[in-house]
Amino acid sequence: MEQSDVRKKAGLARSSVRQLARLEEKEKNAALEAIADAMIRHTGEILRENEKDLAAGETVGISAALTDRLTLTEKRLAEMAEGLHQLCQLPDPIGEVLEMRELENGLQIEKVRVPLGVIGMIYEARPNVTVDAAGLALKTGNAIVLRGSSSAFHSNRALTGVIQQALTNTALPPTAVQLVEEREREAVQELMTANGLIDVIIPRGGAGLIQRVVQESTVPVLETGVGNCHLYVDQAADVDMAREIVINAKTDRPAVCNAAETVLVHRKWAESHLAELCEALSKCGVEIRGCDVARALVPQAKAATADDWDTEYLDLVLAVKVVNSLAEALDHIENHGTRHSEAIITQDEEAARTFFIGVDAAAVYHNASTRFTDGGQFGFGAEIGISTQKLHARGPMGLKEMTSYQYRIHGSGQIRG
Amino acid sequence: MEQSDVRKKAGLARSSVRQLARLEEKEKNAALEAIADAMIRHTGEILRENEKDLAAGETVGISAALTDRLTLTEKRLAEMAEGLHQLCQLPDPIGEVLEMRELENGLQIEKVRVPLGVIGMIYEARPNVTVDAAGLALKTGNAIVLRGSSSAFHSNRALTGVIQQALTNTALPPTAVQLVEEREREAVQELMTANGLIDVIIPRGGAGLIQRVVQESTVPVLETGVGNCHLYVDQAADVDMAREIVINAKTDRPAVCNAAETVLVHRKWAESHLAELCEALSKCGVEIRGCDVARALVPQAKAATADDWDTEYLDLVLAVKVVNSLAEALDHIENHGTRHSEAIITQDEEAARTFFIGVDAAAVYHNASTRFTDGGQFGFGAEIGISTQKLHARGPMGLKEMTSYQYRIHGSGQIRG
Repeated sequence: MEQSDVRKKAGLARSSVRQLARLEEKEKNAALEAIADAMIRHTGEILRENEKDLAAGETVGISAALTDRLTLTEKRLAEMAEGLHQLCQLPDPIGEVLEMRELENGLQIEKVRVPLGVIGMIYEARPNVTVDAAGLALKTGNAIVLRGSSSAFHSNRALTGVIQQALTNTALPPTAVQLVEEREREAVQELMTANGLIDVIIPRGGAGLIQRVVQESTVPVLETGVGNCHLYVDQAADVDMAREIVINAKTDRPAVCNAAETVLVHRKWAESHLAELCEALSKCGVEIRGCDVARALVPQAKAATADDWDTEYLDLVLAVKVVNSLAEALDHIENHGTRHSEAIITQDEEAARTFFIGVDAAAVYHNASTRFTDGGQFGFGAEIGISTQKLHARGPMGLKEMTSYQYRIHGSGQIRG
Repeated sequence: MEQSDVRKKAGLARSSVRQLARLEEKEKNAALEAIADAMIRHTGEILRENEKDLAAGETVGISAALTDRLTLTEKRLAEMAEGLHQLCQLPDPIGEVLEMRELENGLQIEKVRVPLGVIGMIYEARPNVTVDAAGLALKTGNAIVLRGSSSAFHSNRALTGVIQQALTNTALPPTAVQLVEEREREAVQELMTANGLIDVIIPRGGAGLIQRVVQESTVPVLETGVGNCHLYVDQAADVDMAREIVINAKTDRPAVCNAAETVLVHRKWAESHLAELCEALSKCGVEIRGCDVARALVPQAKAATADDWDTEYLDLVLAVKVVNSLAEALDHIENHGTRHSEAIITQDEEAARTFFIGVDAAAVYHNASTRFTDGGQFGFGAEIGISTQKLHARGPMGLKEMTSYQYRIHGSGQIRG
């Protein structure tokens, strides 16, 4: 059987893993610097290729938002290069000894952090992900096979070409970064089923993309991103604090996954303060969709339908539900949450403790906005995505989350009796 | 749509996770003790049900080996109960604070170990896995949905019944342990695709079962077990040590996954010592299948075919290949290994270092038998299986590997600017 182009590229990436695994930190940093410099040097060329994508997008009439995400500028390229420089400042996690134990028979068991191997990245729109993901992969000694969206085809090809060329003058093999250029749907399928060549698939994009990958990938997946996040305003919530947090979590950047989508309000608090809270939200341009009880208290609220409790609006729309107890809030979050970020606002420490233990999510907040779920905010320095699954990594994934470990056992002839 | 029985059971298990997550260690230990006691008390009943499976097995003519694995005795039940008592002695990993950091804005981010949630376990033959897996799950605050093989149907039903009944008098919900009794192939399919209800699938059994789960599961999988393990005898290997280790790794227990299947021998060492090594192996009843160079040195060796390099014999058969260099050995392991356990035998420390970094496997040994890859040997106290994938857990999986983590963020009204 003839090998497909996708498998050939995955094989090329795979062939680089042994060399990548033994690199020293300074060699990896030198390569990142070389890529950053090359991006600046080739700015004109990259922008010309980006123009082709923008022109093609205009022809098929893509949205203004998508056009914005797709657009590269001199400033954006400089920011991407700066991101690579910052990556050099972060400590290299590879080689870290996580545990060490000596058995009675004298065997020394060392648990050492190693690269994952070959990462398959399937993502939409933004060409900056091409550079960010390649940088994070190389810093952690991983090879990466990139599959961007076809709308960013020329931009991604230009960026990958610049990366590969920059690597030729470094200790890193240029084969470590591959771009799957084939436009067919089958190419994605092949990437997701290249067990033995690809060690992990990371999807980044909308719910449709992520669902497709979860359903169809036979390679292990790091599921990222859908955030139907809740704020629970407890009966013991401070009124001003609740207003500030709800407004921030909803309006600071509504299009991102850590923005709030539903507010659950304890009945007692709602009776005194919900109208005022919703008035403040309306002033910020937020459309309120309430349950029947909420609507009786908030004249401007539209009626929420069953679908609203499961919708990630990513927009200035907020579902509001009045609940009779903390337990009812926990049930609602269990049934409708996406295991991303959930917050309780309360002055009652016992209620906060119950919330922490009762909510099954990557990040659980007490008296803070869900907007902090972010690798940068958490101090990771960089982020490949936010995991909403429970295996391997949960929440923001930085450099450490792009590694595995290996047991290295040092003996002197031990055999098992 | 009417809910299937499998989804109903997964839903029952799911409904117990919040209660399980907040249990204290002594409550979990008390439940394990109650199960152990109940197993002893109900020995007669369990053995009678086991008889039914053995009779059915005899009718369809199962192998002696399978009959042995299926058979329960008073002694084996006592050992299973003792395993639960031992589990009580191990520290409870849940609630452990893995990291703590305070941000400049005063937010305190705590990374806390939590249960995975609901584990789906798909396994073959041995009914003791039913009790072992349930014990490990409960000790770590997880619910578990068990799907044993139909050949152990009555035994598994009896054991699960005893577990559930024992739990009624404890702080743990009896719904936390479920058995999928439906005999249809579709039941396994449903379990593997119950995303949202099941958090992780762990398959334990032969290569066929594991491949099916990897191919068809949409729930994240912890792949366990196939071990095509190699021993590389370097040119600087001590002759006596090499003989002891090769014999141990091949013959101590050939049917398990950490047994050696292929020995790679450096040409220089082979020329002086391979004949003697193979004579010692033959005396232990090991059939040798060699490459052409090996056959020229070892008269009793049969010819190895291409398939031999990829075969997990699980039997007293050993493939032997002469290589010209450490690099050639590394290439062979990269192409034919299953990322389980690999060993180098050498007095050359530099060669050992190259081997450690160049081999992509869960456990890499220098001058020791691969037979040590085992949760008990590694000091984990218990083991749910040996992972051959790189996400989440690698190598022997004990209690810690049955957990996830959660970020708990303590604030005082922080919002993102």
